[in-house]
Amino acid sequence: MAMARAGSSPQKSWLYGWHAVLAAWANPARICHRLLLGLDSGKEFQERAVAPVGKPRPKPEYAERARFEKILGKNAVFQNIALEVTELEVLALPDLVRMMQVRPRATFIMLDQVTDPQNVGAIMRSAAALGADAMILQNRHAPEAAGALAKAASGAVELLPICEVVNLSRALAELAEHDCLALALTETAPPIHTIDIPTKTCLVLGAEGDGLRPSVRAACALAASLPTRPDFGTLNVANAAAIGLYECQRRAHGI
Amino acid sequence: MAMARAGSSPQKSWLYGWHAVLAAWANPARICHRLLLGLDSGKEFQERAVAPVGKPRPKPEYAERARFEKILGKNAVFQNIALEVTELEVLALPDLVRMMQVRPRATFIMLDQVTDPQNVGAIMRSAAALGADAMILQNRHAPEAAGALAKAASGAVELLPICEVVNLSRALAELAEHDCLALALTETAPPIHTIDIPTKTCLVLGAEGDGLRPSVRAACALAASLPTRPDFGTLNVANAAAIGLYECQRRAHGI
Repeated sequence: MAMARAGSSPQKSWLYGWHAVLAAWANPARICHRLLLGLDSGKEFQERAVAPVGKPRPKPEYAERARFEKILGKNAVFQNIALEVTELEVLALPDLVRMMQVRPRATFIMLDQVTDPQNVGAIMRSAAALGADAMILQNRHAPEAAGALAKAASGAVELLPICEVVNLSRALAELAEHDCLALALTETAPPIHTIDIPTKTCLVLGAEGDGLRPSVRAACALAASLPTRPDFGTLNVANAAAIGLYECQRRAHGI
Repeated sequence: MAMARAGSSPQKSWLYGWHAVLAAWANPARICHRLLLGLDSGKEFQERAVAPVGKPRPKPEYAERARFEKILGKNAVFQNIALEVTELEVLALPDLVRMMQVRPRATFIMLDQVTDPQNVGAIMRSAAALGADAMILQNRHAPEAAGALAKAASGAVELLPICEVVNLSRALAELAEHDCLALALTETAPPIHTIDIPTKTCLVLGAEGDGLRPSVRAACALAASLPTRPDFGTLNVANAAAIGLYECQRRAHGI
Protein backbone atom coordinates (compact mmCIF):
# COMPACT_ATOMS: atom_id res chain seq x y z
CA MET A 1 0.00 0.00 0.00
CA ALA A 2 2.28 2.70 -1.19
CA MET A 3 0.18 4.44 -3.81
CA ALA A 4 0.01 8.18 -3.80
CA ARG A 5 -3.04 9.33 -1.90
CA ALA A 6 -4.81 12.59 -2.50
CA GLY A 7 -3.32 14.96 0.01
CA SER A 8 -0.42 12.74 1.03
CA SER A 9 3.04 13.16 -0.41
CA PRO A 10 3.74 10.73 -3.24
CA GLN A 11 5.70 7.58 -2.44
CA LYS A 12 8.52 6.06 -4.40
CA SER A 13 8.45 2.50 -5.66
CA TRP A 14 10.34 0.21 -8.03
CA LEU A 15 9.25 -0.91 -11.46
CA TYR A 16 11.06 -3.74 -13.24
CA GLY A 17 10.91 -5.64 -16.49
CA TRP A 18 11.57 -4.22 -19.92
CA HIS A 19 8.08 -3.08 -20.94
CA ALA A 20 7.12 -1.68 -17.54
CA VAL A 21 10.31 0.37 -17.26
CA LEU A 22 10.37 1.66 -20.82
CA ALA A 23 6.73 2.73 -20.63
CA ALA A 24 7.38 4.63 -17.37
CA TRP A 25 10.44 6.19 -18.95
CA ALA A 26 8.36 7.43 -21.88
CA ASN A 27 5.55 8.76 -19.68
CA PRO A 28 5.98 12.53 -19.19
CA ALA A 29 4.05 12.37 -15.92
CA ARG A 30 6.48 9.88 -14.39
CA ILE A 31 9.30 11.17 -12.19
CA CYS A 32 12.19 8.74 -12.38
CA HIS A 33 14.86 8.54 -9.67
CA ARG A 34 17.21 5.63 -10.18
CA LEU A 35 17.82 3.28 -13.09
CA LEU A 36 19.41 -0.10 -12.44
CA LEU A 37 20.79 -2.12 -15.33
CA GLY A 38 22.20 -5.65 -15.17
CA LEU A 39 25.97 -5.84 -15.41
CA ASP A 40 25.63 -8.56 -18.02
CA SER A 41 23.04 -6.81 -20.19
CA GLY A 42 24.33 -6.19 -23.70
CA LYS A 43 25.33 -2.84 -25.20
CA GLU A 44 22.23 -2.59 -27.41
CA PHE A 45 20.03 -3.26 -24.39
CA GLN A 46 21.80 -0.55 -22.40
CA GLU A 47 21.54 1.98 -25.20
CA ARG A 48 17.82 1.37 -25.65
CA ALA A 49 17.30 1.59 -21.90
CA VAL A 50 18.79 5.08 -21.67
CA ALA A 51 17.64 6.52 -25.02
CA PRO A 52 16.54 10.13 -24.47
CA VAL A 53 12.84 10.75 -24.05
CA GLY A 54 12.82 14.49 -23.54
CA LYS A 55 13.13 14.57 -19.78
CA PRO A 56 16.07 14.41 -17.40
CA ARG A 57 17.08 10.86 -16.77
CA PRO A 58 18.93 9.22 -13.91
CA LYS A 59 22.44 8.03 -14.63
CA PRO A 60 22.27 4.24 -14.95
CA GLU A 61 23.78 2.17 -12.17
CA TYR A 62 25.12 -1.24 -13.16
CA ALA A 63 24.17 -3.94 -10.71
CA GLU A 64 24.69 -7.64 -10.07
CA ARG A 65 21.80 -10.04 -9.57
CA ALA A 66 22.29 -9.94 -5.79
CA ARG A 67 21.74 -6.19 -5.72
CA PHE A 68 18.58 -6.46 -7.81
CA GLU A 69 17.31 -9.18 -5.49
CA LYS A 70 18.08 -7.15 -2.40
CA ILE A 71 15.97 -4.28 -3.73
CA LEU A 72 13.21 -6.16 -5.56
CA GLY A 73 12.97 -9.43 -3.63
CA LYS A 74 14.05 -12.92 -4.59
CA ASN A 75 11.13 -13.78 -6.84
CA ALA A 76 11.14 -10.72 -9.08
CA VAL A 77 11.63 -11.51 -12.78
CA PHE A 78 13.39 -8.23 -13.38
CA GLN A 79 14.94 -8.81 -16.81
CA ASN A 80 18.12 -6.84 -15.99
CA ILE A 81 16.29 -3.55 -15.59
CA ALA A 82 14.63 -1.68 -12.73
CA LEU A 83 13.53 1.91 -12.28
CA GLU A 84 12.73 3.75 -9.09
CA VAL A 85 9.84 6.12 -9.68
CA THR A 86 7.45 8.40 -7.90
CA GLU A 87 4.06 6.76 -7.90
CA LEU A 88 1.40 8.20 -10.16
CA GLU A 89 -1.51 10.04 -8.68
CA VAL A 90 -4.54 7.96 -7.88
CA LEU A 91 -7.93 9.33 -8.95
CA ALA A 92 -10.99 9.75 -6.77
CA LEU A 93 -14.58 9.17 -7.81
CA PRO A 94 -15.31 12.84 -8.73
CA ASP A 95 -12.51 12.54 -11.32
CA LEU A 96 -14.41 9.72 -13.03
CA VAL A 97 -17.62 11.74 -12.93
CA ARG A 98 -15.83 14.63 -14.65
CA MET A 99 -14.38 12.18 -17.17
CA MET A 100 -17.86 10.98 -18.09
CA GLN A 101 -19.08 14.54 -18.57
CA VAL A 102 -16.65 15.08 -21.42
CA ARG A 103 -16.62 11.64 -23.04
CA PRO A 104 -19.54 10.24 -25.05
CA ARG A 105 -18.77 6.72 -23.81
CA ALA A 106 -17.05 5.38 -20.74
CA THR A 107 -15.98 1.93 -19.64
CA PHE A 108 -14.68 1.42 -16.13
CA ILE A 109 -13.64 -1.85 -14.58
CA MET A 110 -14.06 -2.49 -10.87
CA LEU A 111 -12.38 -5.35 -9.00
CA ASP A 112 -13.89 -6.62 -5.76
CA GLN A 113 -11.24 -8.33 -3.62
CA VAL A 114 -9.11 -9.38 -6.56
CA THR A 115 -5.69 -8.83 -5.00
CA ASP A 116 -3.23 -11.09 -6.82
CA PRO A 117 -0.79 -8.65 -8.45
CA GLN A 118 -0.39 -10.83 -11.56
CA ASN A 119 -4.13 -10.87 -12.13
CA VAL A 120 -4.63 -7.16 -11.39
CA GLY A 121 -1.71 -6.31 -13.70
CA ALA A 122 -2.98 -8.56 -16.48
CA ILE A 123 -6.43 -6.95 -16.18
CA MET A 124 -4.89 -3.46 -16.34
CA ARG A 125 -3.09 -4.47 -19.52
CA SER A 126 -6.28 -5.74 -21.17
CA ALA A 127 -8.26 -2.73 -19.93
CA ALA A 128 -5.74 -0.27 -21.38
CA ALA A 129 -5.47 -2.17 -24.67
CA LEU A 130 -9.23 -2.46 -25.05
CA GLY A 131 -9.83 1.22 -24.39
CA ALA A 132 -11.21 1.24 -20.86
CA ASP A 133 -11.11 4.61 -19.10
CA ALA A 134 -10.11 3.66 -15.54
CA MET A 135 -9.89 0.84 -13.02
CA ILE A 136 -11.69 1.19 -9.70
CA LEU A 137 -10.31 -0.51 -6.59
CA GLN A 138 -11.17 -0.43 -2.92
CA ASN A 139 -8.36 1.49 -1.27
CA ARG A 140 -7.69 -0.93 1.56
CA HIS A 141 -7.41 -3.87 -0.86
CA ALA A 142 -5.55 -2.15 -3.69
CA PRO A 143 -2.18 -3.74 -4.43
CA GLU A 144 0.73 -1.38 -5.14
CA ALA A 145 0.87 -0.40 -8.85
CA ALA A 146 4.52 -1.39 -9.11
CA GLY A 147 6.64 -4.54 -9.05
CA ALA A 148 4.94 -7.74 -10.22
CA LEU A 149 1.65 -5.93 -10.93
CA ALA A 150 3.35 -3.35 -13.18
CA LYS A 151 5.35 -6.05 -14.93
CA ALA A 152 2.20 -8.05 -15.72
CA ALA A 153 0.57 -4.80 -16.86
CA SER A 154 3.42 -4.41 -19.36
CA GLY A 155 3.26 -0.61 -19.43
CA ALA A 156 -0.47 -0.24 -18.81
CA VAL A 157 0.02 1.41 -15.41
CA GLU A 158 1.23 4.46 -17.36
CA LEU A 159 -1.96 4.60 -19.43
CA LEU A 160 -4.86 3.42 -17.33
CA PRO A 161 -5.81 5.61 -14.36
CA ILE A 162 -6.55 3.89 -11.09
CA CYS A 163 -9.37 5.23 -8.97
CA GLU A 164 -9.47 4.24 -5.33
CA VAL A 165 -12.65 4.40 -3.29
CA VAL A 166 -13.51 3.57 0.30
CA ASN A 167 -16.67 1.60 -0.44
CA LEU A 168 -17.35 -0.15 -3.75
CA SER A 169 -21.14 -0.32 -3.41
CA ARG A 170 -21.39 3.40 -2.64
CA ALA A 171 -19.12 4.16 -5.61
CA LEU A 172 -21.42 2.17 -7.90
CA ALA A 173 -24.45 4.02 -6.54
CA GLU A 174 -22.77 7.33 -7.24
CA LEU A 175 -21.78 6.30 -10.76
CA ALA A 176 -25.39 5.23 -11.37
CA GLU A 177 -26.53 8.76 -10.50
CA HIS A 178 -24.47 9.87 -13.49
CA ASP A 179 -25.98 7.25 -15.82
CA CYS A 180 -23.09 4.86 -15.57
CA LEU A 181 -24.57 1.42 -14.93
CA ALA A 182 -22.75 -1.37 -13.16
CA LEU A 183 -22.56 -4.70 -15.00
CA ALA A 184 -21.62 -7.64 -12.77
CA LEU A 185 -19.91 -10.62 -14.40
CA THR A 186 -21.22 -13.68 -12.57
CA GLU A 187 -21.91 -17.32 -13.37
CA THR A 188 -25.64 -17.07 -12.70
CA ALA A 189 -26.95 -14.47 -15.16
CA PRO A 190 -27.93 -14.28 -18.84
CA PRO A 191 -25.00 -14.58 -21.30
CA ILE A 192 -23.29 -11.26 -21.92
CA HIS A 193 -24.03 -11.24 -25.66
CA THR A 194 -27.76 -11.30 -24.94
CA ILE A 195 -27.93 -8.17 -22.80
CA ASP A 196 -27.84 -4.50 -23.71
CA ILE A 197 -24.66 -2.81 -22.58
CA PRO A 198 -25.13 0.92 -21.92
CA THR A 199 -22.67 3.44 -23.36
CA LYS A 200 -21.48 4.22 -19.84
CA THR A 201 -20.70 1.02 -18.01
CA CYS A 202 -18.71 -0.15 -15.04
CA LEU A 203 -17.80 -3.83 -15.45
CA VAL A 204 -17.56 -5.46 -12.00
CA LEU A 205 -15.64 -8.65 -11.28
CA GLY A 206 -15.02 -10.54 -8.05
CA ALA A 207 -12.32 -12.96 -6.99
CA GLU A 208 -12.32 -16.49 -8.39
CA GLY A 209 -14.15 -18.86 -6.10
CA ASP A 210 -15.71 -16.30 -3.82
CA GLY A 211 -17.17 -14.12 -6.57
CA LEU A 212 -18.71 -10.75 -5.77
CA ARG A 213 -19.68 -9.86 -2.23
CA PRO A 214 -23.49 -9.66 -1.92
CA SER A 215 -23.44 -5.91 -1.20
CA VAL A 216 -21.42 -5.23 -4.35
CA ARG A 217 -23.58 -7.57 -6.45
CA ALA A 218 -26.69 -5.79 -5.14
CA ALA A 219 -25.32 -2.44 -6.31
CA CYS A 220 -25.08 -3.68 -9.92
CA ALA A 221 -28.02 -2.78 -12.15
CA LEU A 222 -27.06 -5.46 -14.68
CA ALA A 223 -25.50 -8.91 -14.55
CA ALA A 224 -24.14 -11.18 -17.25
CA SER A 225 -22.35 -14.49 -17.54
CA LEU A 226 -19.90 -15.81 -20.11
CA PRO A 227 -21.07 -18.64 -22.40
CA THR A 228 -19.13 -21.42 -20.67
CA ARG A 229 -19.91 -25.13 -20.54
CA PRO A 230 -22.13 -26.18 -17.66
CA ASP A 231 -19.66 -28.69 -16.19
CA PHE A 232 -16.65 -26.35 -16.35
CA GLY A 233 -17.87 -22.84 -15.92
CA THR A 234 -15.12 -20.74 -14.44
CA LEU A 235 -12.45 -18.78 -16.22
CA ASN A 236 -9.40 -17.21 -14.69
CA VAL A 237 -10.48 -13.72 -13.55
CA ALA A 238 -8.10 -11.94 -15.94
CA ASN A 239 -9.40 -13.95 -18.91
CA ALA A 240 -13.00 -13.29 -17.89
CA ALA A 241 -12.19 -9.58 -17.60
CA ALA A 242 -10.61 -9.58 -21.08
CA ILE A 243 -13.77 -11.04 -22.60
CA GLY A 244 -16.01 -8.62 -20.71
CA LEU A 245 -13.90 -5.64 -21.76
CA TYR A 246 -13.86 -6.84 -25.36
CA GLU A 247 -17.63 -7.15 -25.35
CA CYS A 248 -18.02 -3.62 -23.90
CA GLN A 249 -15.66 -2.28 -26.56
CA ARG A 250 -17.41 -4.12 -29.41
CA ARG A 251 -20.87 -2.90 -28.35
CA ALA A 252 -19.80 0.64 -27.51
CA HIS A 253 -18.84 0.96 -31.14
CA GLY A 254 -22.08 -0.58 -32.34
CA ILE A 255 -20.48 -3.68 -33.78
CA MET B 1 8.43 -33.66 -22.63
CA ALA B 2 6.89 -36.57 -20.87
CA MET B 3 3.50 -36.79 -22.55
CA ALA B 4 2.23 -40.13 -23.72
CA ARG B 5 3.09 -40.64 -27.37
CA ALA B 6 1.17 -42.86 -29.75
CA GLY B 7 3.00 -46.19 -29.69
CA SER B 8 5.15 -45.37 -26.67
CA SER B 9 4.27 -46.54 -23.18
CA PRO B 10 2.59 -43.83 -21.12
CA GLN B 11 4.73 -41.85 -18.68
CA LYS B 12 3.91 -40.88 -15.16
CA SER B 13 3.91 -37.31 -13.94
CA TRP B 14 2.79 -35.23 -10.95
CA LEU B 15 -0.22 -32.96 -10.74
CA TYR B 16 -0.63 -30.53 -7.86
CA GLY B 17 -3.03 -27.90 -6.63
CA TRP B 18 -6.56 -28.54 -5.46
CA HIS B 19 -8.51 -28.14 -8.72
CA ALA B 20 -5.99 -29.99 -10.90
CA VAL B 21 -5.82 -32.97 -8.54
CA LEU B 22 -9.54 -33.22 -7.85
CA ALA B 23 -10.35 -33.06 -11.57
CA ALA B 24 -7.84 -35.84 -12.33
CA TRP B 25 -9.27 -37.86 -9.48
CA ALA B 26 -12.77 -37.55 -10.93
CA ASN B 27 -11.66 -38.39 -14.48
CA PRO B 28 -12.38 -42.09 -15.17
CA ALA B 29 -9.63 -42.13 -17.81
CA ARG B 30 -6.95 -41.09 -15.32
CA ILE B 31 -4.85 -43.76 -13.66
CA CYS B 32 -3.69 -42.46 -10.28
CA HIS B 33 -0.65 -43.85 -8.51
CA ARG B 34 0.24 -41.87 -5.43
CA LEU B 35 -1.59 -39.19 -3.46
CA LEU B 36 0.42 -36.81 -1.29
CA LEU B 37 -1.36 -34.69 1.32
CA GLY B 38 0.21 -31.99 3.49
CA LEU B 39 0.71 -33.02 7.09
CA ASP B 40 -0.87 -29.77 8.18
CA SER B 41 -3.91 -29.92 5.93
CA GLY B 42 -7.12 -30.05 7.91
CA LYS B 43 -9.44 -33.02 8.36
CA GLU B 44 -12.12 -31.64 6.03
CA PHE B 45 -9.51 -31.08 3.33
CA GLN B 46 -8.23 -34.62 3.72
CA GLU B 47 -11.70 -36.12 3.58
CA ARG B 48 -12.60 -34.23 0.43
CA ALA B 49 -9.28 -35.20 -1.14
CA VAL B 50 -9.94 -38.93 -0.74
CA ALA B 51 -13.72 -38.99 -1.25
CA PRO B 52 -14.61 -42.05 -3.34
CA VAL B 53 -15.06 -41.47 -7.06
CA GLY B 54 -15.83 -45.03 -8.20
CA LYS B 55 -12.31 -46.15 -8.95
CA PRO B 56 -9.54 -47.62 -6.82
CA ARG B 57 -7.61 -44.89 -5.11
CA PRO B 58 -4.09 -44.75 -3.77
CA LYS B 59 -3.73 -44.65 -0.01
CA PRO B 60 -2.82 -41.07 0.91
CA GLU B 61 0.71 -40.40 2.10
CA TYR B 62 1.15 -37.50 4.50
CA ALA B 63 4.14 -35.36 3.66
CA GLU B 64 6.05 -32.35 4.93
CA ARG B 65 6.79 -29.34 2.75
CA ALA B 66 10.33 -30.55 2.16
CA ARG B 67 9.08 -33.81 0.65
CA PHE B 68 6.66 -31.96 -1.65
CA GLU B 69 9.48 -29.67 -2.74
CA LYS B 70 11.81 -32.59 -3.40
CA ILE B 71 9.27 -34.14 -5.75
CA LEU B 72 7.68 -31.03 -7.30
CA GLY B 73 10.50 -28.49 -7.21
CA LYS B 74 10.97 -25.43 -5.02
CA ASN B 75 8.63 -23.10 -6.92
CA ALA B 76 5.56 -25.31 -7.10
CA VAL B 77 2.49 -23.78 -5.44
CA PHE B 78 1.15 -27.19 -4.50
CA GLN B 79 -1.57 -26.29 -1.97
CA ASN B 80 -0.90 -29.34 0.25
CA ILE B 81 -1.93 -31.83 -2.42
CA ALA B 82 -0.19 -33.71 -5.23
CA LEU B 83 -1.15 -36.73 -7.29
CA GLU B 84 1.07 -38.95 -9.38
CA VAL B 85 -0.78 -39.99 -12.51
CA THR B 86 -0.28 -41.74 -15.81
CA GLU B 87 -0.36 -39.12 -18.52
CA LEU B 88 -3.39 -38.97 -20.74
CA GLU B 89 -3.16 -40.09 -24.32
CA VAL B 90 -2.26 -37.39 -26.81
CA LEU B 91 -4.29 -37.24 -30.01
CA ALA B 92 -2.94 -37.18 -33.54
CA LEU B 93 -4.36 -35.19 -36.45
CA PRO B 94 -6.53 -38.04 -37.85
CA ASP B 95 -8.33 -38.04 -34.48
CA LEU B 96 -9.34 -34.40 -35.04
CA VAL B 97 -10.48 -35.19 -38.57
CA ARG B 98 -12.71 -37.97 -37.20
CA MET B 99 -13.98 -35.58 -34.54
CA MET B 100 -15.06 -33.07 -37.22
CA GLN B 101 -16.91 -35.78 -39.14
CA VAL B 102 -19.30 -36.35 -36.26
CA ARG B 103 -19.64 -32.82 -34.90
CA PRO B 104 -21.57 -30.07 -36.70
CA ARG B 105 -19.12 -27.43 -35.41
CA ALA B 106 -15.53 -27.58 -34.31
CA THR B 107 -13.19 -25.09 -32.70
CA PHE B 108 -9.55 -25.95 -32.31
CA ILE B 109 -6.84 -23.73 -30.90
CA MET B 110 -3.26 -23.99 -32.13
CA LEU B 111 -0.30 -22.42 -30.32
CA ASP B 112 2.87 -21.61 -32.26
CA GLN B 113 5.87 -21.49 -29.93
CA VAL B 114 3.87 -20.48 -26.88
CA THR B 115 5.73 -22.52 -24.30
CA ASP B 116 5.23 -20.80 -20.94
CA PRO B 117 3.35 -23.41 -18.87
CA GLN B 118 1.25 -20.75 -17.10
CA ASN B 119 0.06 -19.33 -20.40
CA VAL B 120 -0.56 -22.72 -22.02
CA GLY B 121 -2.45 -23.85 -18.91
CA ALA B 122 -4.54 -20.67 -18.78
CA ILE B 123 -5.39 -21.07 -22.47
CA MET B 124 -6.41 -24.71 -21.90
CA ARG B 125 -8.71 -23.55 -19.12
CA SER B 126 -10.39 -20.92 -21.31
CA ALA B 127 -10.58 -23.33 -24.25
CA ALA B 128 -12.28 -26.02 -22.17
CA ALA B 129 -14.66 -23.53 -20.54
CA LEU B 130 -15.59 -21.92 -23.87
CA GLY B 131 -16.28 -25.25 -25.54
CA ALA B 132 -13.24 -25.73 -27.79
CA ASP B 133 -12.71 -29.27 -29.04
CA ALA B 134 -8.92 -29.66 -28.82
CA MET B 135 -5.63 -27.82 -28.54
CA ILE B 136 -2.97 -28.41 -31.20
CA LEU B 137 0.72 -28.12 -30.30
CA GLN B 138 3.94 -28.87 -32.10
CA ASN B 139 5.32 -31.97 -30.42
CA ARG B 140 8.85 -30.75 -29.93
CA HIS B 141 7.65 -27.52 -28.26
CA ALA B 142 4.80 -28.97 -26.22
CA PRO B 143 5.21 -28.44 -22.47
CA GLU B 144 4.30 -31.35 -20.22
CA ALA B 145 0.57 -31.34 -19.37
CA ALA B 146 1.29 -31.58 -15.65
CA GLY B 147 2.77 -29.43 -12.87
CA ALA B 148 2.42 -25.66 -13.31
CA LEU B 149 0.56 -26.02 -16.63
CA ALA B 150 -2.04 -28.35 -15.14
CA LYS B 151 -2.42 -26.11 -12.10
CA ALA B 152 -3.07 -23.04 -14.30
CA ALA B 153 -5.49 -25.16 -16.34
CA SER B 154 -7.44 -25.80 -13.12
CA GLY B 155 -8.77 -29.19 -14.25
CA ALA B 156 -8.99 -28.45 -17.98
CA VAL B 157 -6.29 -31.00 -18.87
CA GLU B 158 -8.88 -33.65 -17.99
CA LEU B 159 -11.41 -32.19 -20.42
CA LEU B 160 -9.58 -30.70 -23.40
CA PRO B 161 -7.72 -33.16 -25.64
CA ILE B 162 -4.23 -32.19 -26.76
CA CYS B 163 -3.22 -33.04 -30.30
CA GLU B 164 0.48 -33.05 -31.09
CA VAL B 165 1.75 -32.68 -34.63
CA VAL B 166 5.21 -32.58 -36.17
CA ASN B 167 4.62 -29.55 -38.38
CA LEU B 168 1.99 -26.88 -37.67
CA SER B 169 1.71 -25.57 -41.24
CA ARG B 170 1.16 -29.06 -42.64
CA ALA B 171 -1.43 -29.74 -39.95
CA LEU B 172 -3.33 -26.57 -40.94
CA ALA B 173 -3.19 -27.60 -44.61
CA GLU B 174 -4.65 -30.99 -43.73
CA LEU B 175 -7.40 -29.45 -41.59
CA ALA B 176 -8.26 -27.12 -44.50
CA GLU B 177 -8.81 -30.19 -46.72
CA HIS B 178 -11.58 -31.09 -44.28
CA ASP B 179 -13.15 -27.62 -44.39
CA CYS B 180 -11.62 -26.46 -41.13
CA LEU B 181 -10.16 -23.02 -41.79
CA ALA B 182 -7.26 -21.54 -39.87
CA LEU B 183 -7.86 -18.11 -38.33
CA ALA B 184 -4.67 -16.33 -37.30
CA LEU B 185 -4.89 -13.77 -34.49
CA THR B 186 -2.41 -11.02 -35.42
CA GLU B 187 -2.08 -7.29 -34.89
CA THR B 188 -2.22 -6.47 -38.61
CA ALA B 189 -5.57 -7.75 -39.83
CA PRO B 190 -9.21 -6.65 -39.80
CA PRO B 191 -10.88 -6.70 -36.35
CA ILE B 192 -12.26 -10.12 -35.46
CA HIS B 193 -15.86 -8.91 -35.17
CA THR B 194 -15.82 -7.81 -38.82
CA ILE B 195 -14.90 -11.16 -40.35
CA ASP B 196 -16.94 -14.29 -40.95
CA ILE B 197 -15.88 -17.17 -38.75
CA PRO B 198 -16.58 -20.56 -40.33
CA THR B 199 -18.32 -23.29 -38.32
CA LYS B 200 -15.10 -25.31 -38.34
CA THR B 201 -12.20 -23.13 -37.28
CA CYS B 202 -8.72 -23.50 -35.94
CA LEU B 203 -7.72 -20.35 -34.03
CA VAL B 204 -3.95 -19.84 -34.32
CA LEU B 205 -1.88 -17.76 -31.87
CA GLY B 206 1.83 -17.09 -31.69
CA ALA B 207 4.08 -16.08 -28.84
CA GLU B 208 3.94 -12.49 -27.54
CA GLY B 209 6.50 -10.33 -29.23
CA ASP B 210 7.54 -12.75 -31.95
CA GLY B 211 4.02 -13.51 -33.13
CA LEU B 212 3.37 -16.26 -35.65
CA ARG B 213 6.21 -17.67 -37.70
CA PRO B 214 5.76 -16.70 -41.39
CA SER B 215 5.21 -20.31 -42.51
CA VAL B 216 2.41 -20.77 -39.97
CA ARG B 217 0.85 -17.39 -40.82
CA ALA B 218 0.94 -18.33 -44.52
CA ALA B 219 -0.99 -21.52 -43.79
CA CYS B 220 -3.90 -19.51 -42.29
CA ALA B 221 -6.78 -18.81 -44.66
CA LEU B 222 -8.09 -16.02 -42.39
CA ALA B 223 -6.56 -13.44 -40.10
CA ALA B 224 -8.09 -11.12 -37.53
CA SER B 225 -6.96 -8.63 -34.92
CA LEU B 226 -8.49 -7.57 -31.63
CA PRO B 227 -9.91 -4.03 -31.36
CA THR B 228 -7.05 -2.58 -29.32
CA ARG B 229 -5.86 1.01 -29.11
CA PRO B 230 -3.21 1.94 -31.68
CA ASP B 231 -0.59 2.99 -29.14
CA PHE B 232 -0.98 -0.05 -26.90
CA GLY B 233 -1.92 -2.96 -29.05
CA THR B 234 -0.79 -6.16 -27.44
CA LEU B 235 -2.61 -8.33 -24.99
CA ASN B 236 -1.18 -11.16 -22.96
CA VAL B 237 -1.44 -14.27 -25.18
CA ALA B 238 -3.82 -16.05 -22.79
CA ASN B 239 -6.15 -13.04 -22.69
CA ALA B 240 -6.04 -12.71 -26.48
CA ALA B 241 -6.85 -16.42 -26.76
CA ALA B 242 -9.80 -16.04 -24.37
CA ILE B 243 -11.29 -13.27 -26.52
CA GLY B 244 -10.70 -15.23 -29.75
CA LEU B 245 -12.30 -18.34 -28.26
CA TYR B 246 -15.24 -16.33 -26.95
CA GLU B 247 -15.81 -14.82 -30.38
CA CYS B 248 -15.68 -18.27 -32.05
CA GLN B 249 -18.17 -19.57 -29.49
CA ARG B 250 -20.50 -16.59 -29.87
CA ARG B 251 -20.56 -16.83 -33.67
CA ALA B 252 -20.75 -20.62 -33.83
CA HIS B 253 -24.06 -20.28 -32.04
CA GLY B 254 -25.22 -17.50 -34.31
CA ILE B 255 -25.28 -14.85 -31.63
